[in-house]
Amino acid sequence: MLKKLKEQVLQGNLELPKRNLVTYTWGNVSGIDREKGFVVIKPSGVPYEEMTLKDLVVVDLEGNQVEGDMKPSSDTPTHLVLYKAFPDIGGVVHTHSHWSTVWAQIGKGVPALGTTHADYFYGEIPCTRKMTLQEIEGDYEEETGKVIIEGFIDKNPNYFPGVLVKNHGPFSWGKDPQKAVENAVIMEEIAKLAYYTLSFSPDTEAISDGLLDKHFLRKHGKNAYYGQG
Amino acid sequence: MLKKLKEQVLQGNLELPKRNLVTYTWGNVSGIDREKGFVVIKPSGVPYEEMTLKDLVVVDLEGNQVEGDMKPSSDTPTHLVLYKAFPDIGGVVHTHSHWSTVWAQIGKGVPALGTTHADYFYGEIPCTRKMTLQEIEGDYEEETGKVIIEGFIDKNPNYFPGVLVKNHGPFSWGKDPQKAVENAVIMEEIAKLAYYTLSFSPDTEAISDGLLDKHFLRKHGKNAYYGQG
Amino acid sequence: MLKKLKEQVLQGNLELPKRNLVTYTWGNVSGIDREKGFVVIKPSGVPYEEMTLKDLVVVDLEGNQVEGDMKPSSDTPTHLVLYKAFPDIGGVVHTHSHWSTVWAQIGKGVPALGTTHADYFYGEIPCTRKMTLQEIEGDYEEETGKVIIEGFIDKNPNYFPGVLVKNHGPFSWGKDPQKAVENAVIMEEIAKLAYYTLSFSPDTEAISDGLLDKHFLRKHGKNAYYGQG
Amino acid sequence: MLKKLKEQVLQGNLELPKRNLVTYTWGNVSGIDREKGFVVIKPSGVPYEEMTLKDLVVVDLEGNQVEGDMKPSSDTPTHLVLYKAFPDIGGVVHTHSHWSTVWAQIGKGVPALGTTHADYFYGEIPCTRKMTLQEIEGDYEEETGKVIIEGFIDKNPNYFPGVLVKNHGPFSWGKDPQKAVENAVIMEEIAKLAYYTLSFSPDTEAISDGLLDKHFLRKHGKNAYYGQG
Repeated sequence: MLKKLKEQVLQGNLELPKRNLVTYTWGNVSGIDREKGFVVIKPSGVPYEEMTLKDLVVVDLEGNQVEGDMKPSSDTPTHLVLYKAFPDIGGVVHTHSHWSTVWAQIGKGVPALGTTHADYFYGEIPCTRKMTLQEIEGDYEEETGKVIIEGFIDKNPNYFPGVLVKNHGPFSWGKDPQKAVENAVIMEEIAKLAYYTLSFSPDTEAISDGLLDKHFLRKHGKNAYYGQG
Repeated sequence: MLKKLKEQVLQGNLELPKRNLVTYTWGNVSGIDREKGFVVIKPSGVPYEEMTLKDLVVVDLEGNQVEGDMKPSSDTPTHLVLYKAFPDIGGVVHTHSHWSTVWAQIGKGVPALGTTHADYFYGEIPCTRKMTLQEIEGDYEEETGKVIIEGFIDKNPNYFPGVLVKNHGPFSWGKDPQKAVENAVIMEEIAKLAYYTLSFSPDTEAISDGLLDKHFLRKHGKNAYYGQG
Repeated sequence: MLKKLKEQVLQGNLELPKRNLVTYTWGNVSGIDREKGFVVIKPSGVPYEEMTLKDLVVVDLEGNQVEGDMKPSSDTPTHLVLYKAFPDIGGVVHTHSHWSTVWAQIGKGVPALGTTHADYFYGEIPCTRKMTLQEIEGDYEEETGKVIIEGFIDKNPNYFPGVLVKNHGPFSWGKDPQKAVENAVIMEEIAKLAYYTLSFSPDTEAISDGLLDKHFLRKHGKNAYYGQG
Repeated sequence: MLKKLKEQVLQGNLELPKRNLVTYTWGNVSGIDREKGFVVIKPSGVPYEEMTLKDLVVVDLEGNQVEGDMKPSSDTPTHLVLYKAFPDIGGVVHTHSHWSTVWAQIGKGVPALGTTHADYFYGEIPCTRKMTLQEIEGDYEEETGKVIIEGFIDKNPNYFPGVLVKNHGPFSWGKDPQKAVENAVIMEEIAKLAYYTLSFSPDTEAISDGLLDKHFLRKHGKNAYYGQG
C-alpha cells in the first residue's frame, strides 16, 4: 500500500542528513495520499542510516495508526493539522536546522532582504506567537499545528511554504515530500543570509514590492518564465 | 559547433556546486566565441548533476537562440550586456554564493582590507545602485546588466573582475569561463574576510595605496612576477 | 579484560574526529566498569587515526595504572573525580569543541533558549567558577574535577549531562561512553544556537518553565513518550 | 639531494588544502637543511593537486637558486629572513587561512583567552606593525620578514610559533615542516575561538598567568608531562 509515497517519504527523510539539516534523529518528513486520506511518516527516534521502507508508519488524518509496527514521529499531530488546513500540500518537513532554529529562538520572522528570498517566499517568513501554558500542557503537538495555521488566516501557504515555531524550529511544506524538503533547504539558506545581513547592518530595509513581485512571479504563478516548464 | 567552448562552459557550471557557490540551480556560467559572436550558456533550471554538453544553449549577442532544445538561463540578457560592454572578457558567472550575497543585501561595496583582496581586485568590489521600478518592470534582466556597466564607466573591468548587484548577488567575469569561476570563488573569500573584519572592527581602514599597488601589480600587468608565466 | 568496554571507549574516541569535535589529539573519552571499579581511557597525545584497542589504558578509581603500556590522558584525574561523584554515569568525554569552548572562554553558562536545548538539558548548561592559583598549581586536573562537582551540589548530573570549565572547555557524560559522546555533540549544537541567538538579540529570554518541562520530560523520566522505548 | 626534506616539504604543502588552510595556490611551506644551509620551498603559483617532488625549488640562505626548473614561491625572501633569525626552526608556513587573516586585517594580536591557546602559544599571538611605503616599495618580501623579526626582539620564537603580518596573513614555524603546518592549523583554531569570544563579550580578560604557565609548561619545556615522550 502507498508504495510510491513511502519511497518519496523515505527519500525525503534520508535527504535531511545529506543536506545537513539534522543531527541524530532531529527531523521528520511525511507525505499524504489525498485520495485515501492516509499520511506516511517517519517513526519516532529511529536513526536515518538504519531506516527502511518497512519502518515508516501510516496514519489517517485523525492520527489512527493504519500500518507499521513502530510509533510514528512524536510530531505527527502537527503534520496532521497542517494537512487538514492546507489542502494543496502533499509533504511536510520538520527539522531543527541551524539558521531557521536561530530565528525561531530570536522569535522573529525572516524579512525578505534579497532576490534569493523573493524567489521562494512572497514576503517575510512568518514566526508563530508564543504558546500559552495551557497549549503546552494540553495536546502540545496538535496545538503547535494550530498556532501555525493561526498565522495563515490571511496568508496563502503556497506562497509562504514554511514557518518558524517560536522557541522551537522550522516547519516547511510543498506539493510533495521532495518539494517540502527543498523548501526546508531554501528556508535555511535565506535565514542564514538574513541573519548575517541584519547582524552587520540592522537597519537594512526589506526589498521593494516591485523586486519582490518580479522575482516571486517569474518563478510562480501563471506568468512564470523560469525553468523549462 | 563550439565544442571546446561548450566543454569549458560545462566544466565551469559543474565547478559551481563543487566550490560550494550554489544551492540547487542557483547559478550559471557562460562563455563567448568572440569571432563568431556566439555565447554558450547554461539552460534554465536544470540540475547540475544531470547537465550534459547537449543541454547547453547557444545564443547570439542579441539573444537569438542559435542552438539547443532548452530555454537558456533566465539571466542570459544580463550576460549579453556584459559581453557587449566589456570587450576583453570571455566568460561570465552569476551565483547567489553566501558572502557575496550578504554584501549585496547589505548594499555596500566590499572594501580592500588586505593583500588577499589586493591580489585580485584593484580596490573596492563595487555594488550597483538600487534599480528603479521602471527598470524592474521593464526588461529586468537586461536592465540588471545596464546597471552593472553604469558603475564601470570609470573602472577597468579587467582590474575589477566582479560586481555585486544590490539586493541580488554577485556577477564575475574573466578571460574565459574558468577564470570567471575562479573570480567568483575569490570574491566569495574576500567578501567573507571583509565581513568578519568589519563586523569585529567597524572602523578598519582600507589598505594603503602602496600595499594595494604592490600586491595587485605583482600579479597583474606588465611587471607581474608571481607564478611561472 | 574489559573487552566490551574497551571497544566502546575506542569507538567513542574515534567518533570525536568524525563529529568534528577535535583537532589533532585535543579530546578524550573514557568508560567505567562499575563492578570492578576500573576506568578505560585514551592514552595521552596519541593520534586518533593510529589508535587501537591495545593503546587504551586501564586505571582504578585512585588513578593507579592497572593495564596498558602507555600513559593515560593527562585529564584522567578529572574523569575519576566525576566517576566518583556521579554514581549513575558510565562514560565521560572532554574536548575543545568550538562552540562549547567559546562559551567556556566567555565564562558564562548557556541559557535554555529553545526546545532543542530543552530536549537534553533541564535548564542552563553550567559553567564553573574561575580556579584559584592554588588549585592551578596544585593537582590541577583533579582540582578541575572538583570545581565541576562543586557546581552540581544542587543539580542532578543526569538532568545536566555536561558542563563548561571556565577558560578551558566542555566535559560531558552519559550512561555509557556512546551517550557521553552524544551529549558532547548536542552541547556543541545548542551552544552554537545560543551563541547566534544572543549575539543577534542579547535580551532574548530563556524559554518558559512550561516549555522546558514539556520537552525535557517527553524525552526523559517516567512519562517520556519520545522514541520507541 | 635533500630527498627526505623534499618529501617533508611536499607533504606539508599538500596538507594545506586538506586542512582547509588554502584556496587555489594561496600558501607555501618550506623546510631547511641546517647543515647544508639549503631551503626547499614550493614553486610559485603551482596548483597543489599537480605538485610533485620535482617541482620543488632549492635555494641557499641568500636566495640563490640551487636546484629546480621553476621559480620559487614569491614569498621565499620572507622565509629566508625567518630561517636566519630563528636558529631552532626547521620549517616555515605562510597561508591566507580565514581566521588568522581576519585578525591580520583587524591588525591586532590574538589574546590568550583559554587553555587551547595556552597549550601552544605562551601569550598573545603577535601582529606586526604597519609596513612603511619605503618597505613596501623596496624588497617587499624581505622587508616582510624583517618586520616580523622586529617583533621578536624580546620574544622566544619557540614559545610563539607564529605571527600575523598586518593587512596580510599568518606565518608559522616549527622544528620541521610538519610542525610548522601543525602550528598553522592551531593558530587558525585559536584565532577563531578568540574572534567569537571577543565578538560576543568584548571585555573578556586574558587568562591568568597561572593558567597560562600551567598549560604551556605541561606541554613544553623540561617539566612537560603531556603525551608519551
